[in-house]
This record gives sequence, C-alpha cells and structure tokens, in this order.
Amino acid sequence: MKVSVEPKRNAWIDLLTRPSGHDASQDAIVDNILQDIKSHGDSALKKYTEKFDQVKLTTFKVSPEEITQAIDLVPEALKQAIAIAKENIETFHRSQERETKMVETMPGVKCWQRSMPIEKIGIYIPGGTAPLFSTVLMLATPAAIAGCKEIILCSPPDRSGKINPAILFAASLCGVTQIFKSGGAQAIAAMAYGTKEIPSVSKIFGPGNSFVTAAKMKVQQEGIAIDMPAGPSEVLICADESADPSWVAIDLLSQAEHGIDSQVILVTDSEKVVKDVQKQLDLLLKALPRVKMASGALSHSHAIIFKKISDQIDFINAYAPEHLILNHAQADMIAEKINNAGSVFLGPYSPESVGDYASGTNHTLPTSAYARAYSGVNLDSFTKKITYQKLTAEGLKLIGPVVEIMAEAEQLEAHRLAVSMRLEKMNK
Amino acid sequence: MKVSVEPKRNAWIDLLTRPSGHDASQDAIVDNILQDIKSHGDSALKKYTEKFDQVKLTTFKVSPEEITQAIDLVPEALKQAIAIAKENIETFHRSQERETKMVETMPGVKCWQRSMPIEKIGIYIPGGTAPLFSTVLMLATPAAIAGCKEIILCSPPDRSGKINPAILFAASLCGVTQIFKSGGAQAIAAMAYGTKEIPSVSKIFGPGNSFVTAAKMKVQQEGIAIDMPAGPSEVLICADESADPSWVAIDLLSQAEHGIDSQVILVTDSEKVVKDVQKQLDLLLKALPRVKMASGALSHSHAIIFKKISDQIDFINAYAPEHLILNHAQADMIAEKINNAGSVFLGPYSPESVGDYASGTNHTLPTSAYARAYSGVNLDSFTKKITYQKLTAEGLKLIGPVVEIMAEAEQLEAHRLAVSMRLEKMNK
Repeated sequence: MKVSVEPKRNAWIDLLTRPSGHDASQDAIVDNILQDIKSHGDSALKKYTEKFDQVKLTTFKVSPEEITQAIDLVPEALKQAIAIAKENIETFHRSQERETKMVETMPGVKCWQRSMPIEKIGIYIPGGTAPLFSTVLMLATPAAIAGCKEIILCSPPDRSGKINPAILFAASLCGVTQIFKSGGAQAIAAMAYGTKEIPSVSKIFGPGNSFVTAAKMKVQQEGIAIDMPAGPSEVLICADESADPSWVAIDLLSQAEHGIDSQVILVTDSEKVVKDVQKQLDLLLKALPRVKMASGALSHSHAIIFKKISDQIDFINAYAPEHLILNHAQADMIAEKINNAGSVFLGPYSPESVGDYASGTNHTLPTSAYARAYSGVNLDSFTKKITYQKLTAEGLKLIGPVVEIMAEAEQLEAHRLAVSMRLEKMNK
Repeated sequence: MKVSVEPKRNAWIDLLTRPSGHDASQDAIVDNILQDIKSHGDSALKKYTEKFDQVKLTTFKVSPEEITQAIDLVPEALKQAIAIAKENIETFHRSQERETKMVETMPGVKCWQRSMPIEKIGIYIPGGTAPLFSTVLMLATPAAIAGCKEIILCSPPDRSGKINPAILFAASLCGVTQIFKSGGAQAIAAMAYGTKEIPSVSKIFGPGNSFVTAAKMKVQQEGIAIDMPAGPSEVLICADESADPSWVAIDLLSQAEHGIDSQVILVTDSEKVVKDVQKQLDLLLKALPRVKMASGALSHSHAIIFKKISDQIDFINAYAPEHLILNHAQADMIAEKINNAGSVFLGPYSPESVGDYASGTNHTLPTSAYARAYSGVNLDSFTKKITYQKLTAEGLKLIGPVVEIMAEAEQLEAHRLAVSMRLEKMNK
C-alpha cells in the first residue's frame, strides 16, 4: 500500500483512479461471437463451448435428474448455511416492496405508478475454481420476489460437462426456472438474442470476466437491459484507533483476494493505524492461499491520512466505493454523511464478508465510482414502473385549457386538438 | 394504416417491429466529436457551435440577465399553464418518495436501504422549431424533489445566440442551477467529460436527434449513466365501439405529428371502429400544419383486429408500447392485465396529450419495446440506493458460522477469516 498524508485536492485524481479493466483488443472477438450466435444459434454455441470449455455438449439444458443428483452432493452444513442466507436476503429484499399509491393531482385527474416484474431475466454465473453460488442467491432471490416469470441461468460447464453442485442447489432453491451449461460472451449472446434452446430475456444480470462484461455492454446498446456496468471489486475502510488493526487488515485482504485488479483503500486520521494495519497485512498475507492475487491488489492500493474527519468524508464521497467499511467510533455520524457508496458496513462487527454472503443486503454493487449514479442490485432491478392516469369528464374540463395552451406554444396542433375536440363535444 | 385481421402469432414479428432509427454512418462523426471535446474542451465546443448552430459564442452560460429578460417575453397565460403543470408533476413525483425502512434480518443484524440524490445531473433539451419546455418540467422537477445539487441544462442556441424564452422560464421555475447554450453530440460530450465552463455530471437525461442519442449511448459505455435508450415515439390505442372515432383519430394523429418515424397502432375487435377511425383520420389530417410528418408516420402504422380481448391484451404486452390509450368500456380490466407499457391512459377523457403536459405523470418513457425492462423517468431516476448493515457482537456470533461455511465453499479464505478472527477474539 502506498501511503499518502493529507493529499491536496488537486492530487486526488490519482488516488481516485481505478485500475483499468477494458481491453479494446477483445472488442472484435466479442463482436464476432455475438454475430455468430445471432446467426447460427445453438450450433455456434456448441462450437464455442467445445473451444472454450473443452467439452462437447448435445444439449445445454441441465436436466431435473442432474439437479437432483447435484443436490445430493452438497454437504448438509452448506445447504443449511445457504438456506439461512437466502432467508435473510429474502427478508431484506421483501422490505423493499412498495404499495401502489394513487394521487389526485387535480380533482378528477388520478395518477398512479405500479411496479411490474420484468417477465424474462437471465443470470450469468462464472465458472472457474471458486463456484459463486452466493451470487445465485443474490440475483435469483429478488427476481422471484419481484415475480419474474422466467428466471434463466447460464454458467459454463467443466470439462466433464457439469456445473458445480452448489450452484445447482442454490438455483433450484431460489426459483431459477431453467439452467443452461453455457459460459462467456456466447452465453450473454444466447440470452440476448435467444437460440432454439435458450430463450431470450429482457435483462441480464451477473458478474463475469472481461469478455462477459464486454458482451453485456454491447447487447445493452441493442436495447437489452443489464444490471450495471462492471469493474474490478473494491473496498474502502475508514478506521480510527478504536479499530482492531488485525480486523482492518483481514477486511482489506478479503477484498484483495478477489483478484490482482481489486483495489483496497484505507482512510484514517492516524499514522499508528496505518503502521499497525501494515504489520498485520504482512503477517496475514503469508497464510492466504490466494497470496498472489492479494499481494498484487495491495501493490496498487492506498492508505490515506487526513486529520480532519470532513476531509475523510469528502474523499470517500469522491471515491464512491463499492464497499465502505466504517470501523470507526463515529460510524453512525459518518454513514449519515455518505452520498456515494454501494453498500456500507457500520462498526467493528460488520465485516464486508457478512454482506457478501448472508446479512441480507445484495452483493452485486456498483464499482469504479459508478455509485455516484448507480444503485446496487435491489428489488427494483427486477421490475419496471408503469404509470397510469384516468381522468373524468370534469377532470379533463379542468386540466384541458392548461394542455391546450402548452401544446399550442410547442406548436403541436394535434396534441391541442385531442383536448379541444373533446371539450367541444362535451360542451354541446 | 395497414389493416391486419386476426394475425397469427407467427406473423406478429412484423407488426411488432419498429421503424429503425440507428444510422451507423453517424458513429464515426460522433466518436470524433466526443474525442475532440474530451481533448480540447470549450474551444472545440465553440468550433462545433459555430459549425452546427451557426453562431459564434464567447461564453456558453446563460446569464441571470438573459433569464430575466426571457421571463418577461413569456405570455402570462403560458406562464400560468406551465406553473399548474409543474405543480401536478411535483405532486405525482413526490408521491413516489419512500421512507427508509430498517429490518432486522436476524437478531443483531440490521439492514436498511436509503435513496440518495445523484449529486450532478445534466438535462438535454433539443432546439429546432418547437421549443420543448414541457420536457424541462418533466426532468428538472423530479431532479429538484430528489435533491440533486447540480441540475444543469444544455440546449442549442438559435442563430442569434439565444435559447427559447419558454425553456428558460421553465428551467428557472423548476430549479435548474445552470443553463448552457450548447447542442448536439458536443453538448452530451461536455456534460459527460466536463469542460472549463460546463461541469461534468454523473447522469444525462433528455431527448435528441440521432447524433444526441448516439452520443448518449457512447458515453454510457464509459460509465456515465443515461435515462434510457431512445427510439422514435409511439402510441397504441385499444378501442372498442364505445369510443368516439374522432377522438381515437386525433389521439393517433397527436402521436403521428411528432415525426415520420413515429408509429401509431390501433387494436380493436371491430371492423367498424377501423373504418370510422380511418374516415376521421382522412378528415383531420388535412387540417394539421404537420401533415407531412403525420401522414409519413401513418404510412407505416397498423390497425389490428382481434375478436378476443385476450388476444388484444397479449398483442399489447408483446408490443410493449410507450403510450397505451385504453379508450374502451373495459379499460380498468385491461389495464390490470398490462405487463409492458410506459404510461397508460384509461377511458375516453384521458388523451395522451394530458400526460405529455400536465396530468403529473412523466412523458419521458421507454420506446421500441424497451418497456419490457425499462421504466419511464420517475423520482428514482434521480437517485441511487445505498444499502447499510450494522451488526452487534451478538449478531455476528449468530450469522458468523453461516458466512464461514459459505466462504470456505467458495474458497475465499480471507472472507472466512474476517469472521473467524473476530469470533475468536470475541470468545476469548
């Protein structure tokens, strides 16, 4: 970690910059894959699955038997843990439901807004060494609460043509309606355009490597909604001397172990905190299996000292961290003043990993300072809002003249006539 | 209008297809403009303003004096109409505010979600013959309610270097903080990247021509949020024999007059309705000043007859119209079954133009079937949601083992240790 003491505002830009993720050389590859799936559907999908996942598949759909078998393979303790986490996620996301509220903006002019489920959504879950079943919980649970009718999931198969059992267990627990063995940009293309086997969806969720991310951004240009733009994961910890340095260090490492491009930031008023945390980082790092990733991430991370708490808060808001841990005696006061962050963890007993798995909040969050304008995934991510208005004859008489004057000033004559013709006939 | 009688489902695809808007030849032009503004800021902006708006500007910002002068130019009747419309929009969007609700997902594990304003937003208002002051109301009013600190507005100047007075009046009434004379893709670039004079924003709203739309889509790829993807405007009217054919016709025309690429659709169970409406269209069309646009739009529009109401509803949901008028005896029942639409107008006294201007609902709505996944602009469009969690020591003891098991199964050792180290120390 590089240490900065009281950096001036005009030097913040370097501290706020994230490690870049976008690799332009992938664009043409992804364009080709998208075009190929659009034109050739399942046969192209089989070709890419053989090429990238090194397995020949005759069908992509995971059968009910495969799911039953997989469920048997998941240890009972893990099943129970997943069920508890799912329940908390459900409780929190259900609390985000809202009632339809009708208002009468003028007598006889009733307006209301209703949240309706997006009917078909797709979830992408990456493959690789660590099976991200927790992300299945985070995406499928609110989708089911929202009432999405089709919740499909794509995840790349291993070389034996299987998806990790914990992923299949989580998917079947959380209401996923169909699971497909498909990964990479080609899976995103399949969910965007549809193939004979994989249905097209209106919105695609979930993390992935840079090819997956590029594919999501590209299909978004064609009108398919996506959860949010994605970047490397990050945490900012604001700590004072009340914090246990070993707890701060392991929280930093739990972010750093995600990958070399992760970024971790420590903001504090105390040089002692920085020194103590660094000591603990050195000690703890050695014991981690993912030491290479974690030390890579630490190499481009920062510890920043500001004496004034207001400077710390300004810096946090400028950085707009995905995860913000306030291991600080004044955590509540600071949280109140945070405008830009994905998810906030208050106090010493709230490590990021509780939110990653089980507290109930969502772990799909805006990175790369996107928190300035984007929310993390929440119940609303699976719905869209429709507005309604219903006027009585009296309501139209009241509001009509307002519309006539405005339409005339905007030179939209038919807009005006739509009101005037009604008013005329009503006055006859 | 082309008439289709009981079209089979496999023939729907043609009826659901919108007139295409994207012109790939513009991509390179827009890329150049974006790059130029990014590199050369205000001097590039001046160059493009001279080229496209044919006026030399020394400064882009509209001065307080210019605003005061403009306000004097707006007729009193129009001012009053705008004020009433603004009040209705305010009432409806305020009704969308929601309270923060804290839930305890497990004893000692508190989670909550808070809506926070996006601090800096930008509004684009096109120039041209008709001054779209109504869109200023629709975007600035909810931005102010949300609490956005900076609400800037860009609109192209006319050849004398001025912005239409009604736009300036609406902007000053609705809480816009700064107004700039800048249009086209270059204005979008200025708001995305910032120049010396025009501040950068986190989210850009508003309609525009195909260059503006292309620029918005491109800056979205760089992490700047936008309101929604844009396409030509459209209305679908579902009418039965209870509807006055002249009212149906003028509502179709009020959409058609927007432009040649607008689309209007009539869905009904009655051949008589189609015939009567077509007769009225012929009569009314001649009297419109924008007859060319309207008749162009009608040439690629459809009247579709389904005897069964369930087929009508299925078609409407498949089409996912931006505006849906239910001029139908069973409007309430149909509205209940609509899953995909931007804004719905119920009954004979609710023409689209009341929602375009003054009922209180927003007129910035998803076109091109984007309503399957996207909402129209609403209060939430100007906020993002931050989640929070705060655990007590007891809460962590309870949830800790769940996190440990899940982190271990995902092979994220530091995630596990962040909990285990705390639990160990707490048990000492």
